[in-house]
Amino acid sequence: MNPDQIRIVLVEPSHPGNIGAVARAMKTMGLGKLVLVAPEKFPDEQATWRAVWANDVLEAAEVVDSLDAAIADCGFVVGTCARDQRLPWPVLDPRRAAVEMATNSKRGEVAILFGREDNGLSNEELMRCNLHLAIPTSDAYSSLNLAMAVQIVCYELHMLQTGDELPQDPNEGWDEPLATQENIERFYVHLEETLSQIGFLNPAAPRKLMPRLRRLYNRLGMDEMELNILRGILTETQKRSEPVDWDRQREGKA
Amino acid sequence: MNPDQIRIVLVEPSHPGNIGAVARAMKTMGLGKLVLVAPEKFPDEQATWRAVWANDVLEAAEVVDSLDAAIADCGFVVGTCARDQRLPWPVLDPRRAAVEMATNSKRGEVAILFGREDNGLSNEELMRCNLHLAIPTSDAYSSLNLAMAVQIVCYELHMLQTGDELPQDPNEGWDEPLATQENIERFYVHLEETLSQIGFLNPAAPRKLMPRLRRLYNRLGMDEMELNILRGILTETQKRSEPVDWDRQREGKA
Repeated sequence: MNPDQIRIVLVEPSHPGNIGAVARAMKTMGLGKLVLVAPEKFPDEQATWRAVWANDVLEAAEVVDSLDAAIADCGFVVGTCARDQRLPWPVLDPRRAAVEMATNSKRGEVAILFGREDNGLSNEELMRCNLHLAIPTSDAYSSLNLAMAVQIVCYELHMLQTGDELPQDPNEGWDEPLATQENIERFYVHLEETLSQIGFLNPAAPRKLMPRLRRLYNRLGMDEMELNILRGILTETQKRSEPVDWDRQREGKA
Repeated sequence: MNPDQIRIVLVEPSHPGNIGAVARAMKTMGLGKLVLVAPEKFPDEQATWRAVWANDVLEAAEVVDSLDAAIADCGFVVGTCARDQRLPWPVLDPRRAAVEMATNSKRGEVAILFGREDNGLSNEELMRCNLHLAIPTSDAYSSLNLAMAVQIVCYELHMLQTGDELPQDPNEGWDEPLATQENIERFYVHLEETLSQIGFLNPAAPRKLMPRLRRLYNRLGMDEMELNILRGILTETQKRSEPVDWDRQREGKA
């Protein structure tokens, strides 16, 4: 993928706030080329305000009169549209479209077209595209805000580059080594002993208490430090509590 | 996944416009439960304006005083944060976190916490979470707008449910059957004949013209109607053009 060869094209955006929000959405995802086709108001302080720290993207934005001018030098053009579009045309969701766009960006300029806030791209504009992109939405409300749609598409492009930077396993990169089975077994012995001592576990009628606790602690995937903390608690508990005499208690009850 | 058991929790949002944009982002992705912890201004006409057709989500939003009240009945709590968070804690990107949230939503209430516009969730709030969620961003600008972050997370949840509704192959659901190889070969014969007739292809020195045209048309995956159109063009071309006499031309050149 070559992000420098991917441009976002807004066709006749009417709210300058959206243009600013688009600039921010792009920059947070590592894209910088914005082309505006006949924007209603631009530049505008609403755009500047919504762009926050992406004003460089706004300032570098190219303003053109026609879609032709926006995509003349492009090798691959993608048009965003609603799913119930009338044209039968190749269409993909943002995830799969991102792969196509990334691939094509290595071979030429790629344009991603977003239509007007109120009624999107025209059929004539959609027919200029190599591929259509539809964002899956709820049946109850299918109209995303313009900048939100841009954010999702840019996010998918960025995920292609950095999706694997974050751990796939939530515990990857954990700062302590996992507790060994040997130490975990010692912990269970210590736990059982302590629970018996404080009168919570009756050795003569243990029920399923230890299996339940094993299932709980085993799911945790404890690290050595956590295990040491738990053992420290058990040790302190044992020191502070008078051992329950289960034999006497049984006699008393009988 | 049970979307009715997933709530979006905004902790101390300061801009009512963002609350409205969040409501719209949620509804377009099929979510409806919004909880606001001590919002600065709510209800507010900015929120109403930005929600557009998601005012039902705003009207049903629950306003509470504390994070405790927002998540008391939840079984699984996810906190969004920047990647350079100080806490070592289980963390996933939105795609992988969505799987965890969807799974847990079948077993209990799930809360997804989004922090303040200016400085996110506090460490204390993050420590209330089972899982952290970080959206991969550009190093140059890592701060997404609040509603944009909500949009991405809700989009990933929605993609889990409907990601496969759109064709995986961009040409799936095409309205015409693919042209058969038999018909495509007839087309190539017709094409070669026509190109020869109009003087574009010299049968004695064809170079790589036909292989190049084959590569081009084969990539298209033409349907029968398209093939018929092309053959119609060839037929008309043949009718209208005087055949080039390649033998005579060769003599003339020699």
